[in-house]
Amino acid sequence: MGRASKREEIAEAAFRQFHAKGFNATGINEITKAAGVPKGSFYNHFSSKEESALEALGRYRDSLRFEMLSSQDRPPLERLRAHFEFLGEDLLRNGFARGCLVGNLGAEVADHSEVIRAAAKRGFDGWAARLREVLTEAQEAGDLDASIDVESTALFILSAWEGTLIAARIDKSAAPMDAFFRTVFGGVLR
Amino acid sequence: MGRASKREEIAEAAFRQFHAKGFNATGINEITKAAGVPKGSFYNHFSSKEESALEALGRYRDSLRFEMLSSQDRPPLERLRAHFEFLGEDLLRNGFARGCLVGNLGAEVADHSEVIRAAAKRGFDGWAARLREVLTEAQEAGDLDASIDVESTALFILSAWEGTLIAARIDKSAAPMDAFFRTVFGGVLR
Repeated sequence: MGRASKREEIAEAAFRQFHAKGFNATGINEITKAAGVPKGSFYNHFSSKEESALEALGRYRDSLRFEMLSSQDRPPLERLRAHFEFLGEDLLRNGFARGCLVGNLGAEVADHSEVIRAAAKRGFDGWAARLREVLTEAQEAGDLDASIDVESTALFILSAWEGTLIAARIDKSAAPMDAFFRTVFGGVLR
Repeated sequence: MGRASKREEIAEAAFRQFHAKGFNATGINEITKAAGVPKGSFYNHFSSKEESALEALGRYRDSLRFEMLSSQDRPPLERLRAHFEFLGEDLLRNGFARGCLVGNLGAEVADHSEVIRAAAKRGFDGWAARLREVLTEAQEAGDLDASIDVESTALFILSAWEGTLIAARIDKSAAPMDAFFRTVFGGVLR
């Protein structure tokens, strides 16, 4: 296995381990074991576990299919719903486990690692900006009350989604997701 | 220090450590050190770190002043707002750190510890039931649209609050909390 593919194997294994087990429960040993590479090779590619977590956040972001939000194939609020339905399917496929890597690392290590907190903040800021764009489009199309503050509402919907994933993992049921769709699309975005 | 007070010191130190650092980053060593007791004494009082986390969840719940929700001194929706403002002050006092112990343990260990997941679920279920009661009172008083599904809405508000705390810790700002109050009290509960 060449250097480039080894790095890829390690980065992908780190992403999967952090998503499944969290930051502190994941050891570098387990990452290299899952990647099928010698333990020492981790430090040929990453300076620290923290650095591999930053790359994991990037990989997670790339899995979120944000292009669904901006494609012009459907009305804005339908795209917004499809976006969260797509993310929700992931939770169902994982048996109500894992949730959102950004929220998970935020809850577990944002208070203790400034670099991870800053990366999570960039992730949330970019995500909220994309949600805001969809809400703005919906207002322009006349599908959303013009009096709604799109910046505050985008931020709120993102927070609500993050909490919904945690509640669904704790409840091991789709009830919190059902409540999210009902209240956001039947109430907040009337 | 007698047995009873030693147990109290250990339980309180465990609560504070879990709240500040999370489950996996907290060692029994650190709990006993913070409690000022010999390391071995932990197991005289708790069978495992998990068991001390269950007690920590109970201590956290007792700090939430749920009686604010049921006292009849103010209209129901004012009590609901005061409840979340009280919880939000805690985050501000801690410099946007710590957040909610139930959500934190849920995000970090619900996928891996069935006993902690079950305890977190009991915590959320009880909390959602209290929120639901306040919403029902508000409907009965004519302060809340009778068409709102109070069960689903209570669950949603709790999820949204949990995500709001994580977003505020990641953002190290009150913006997510401002968005919560604006959308919940200016939108969801119109």
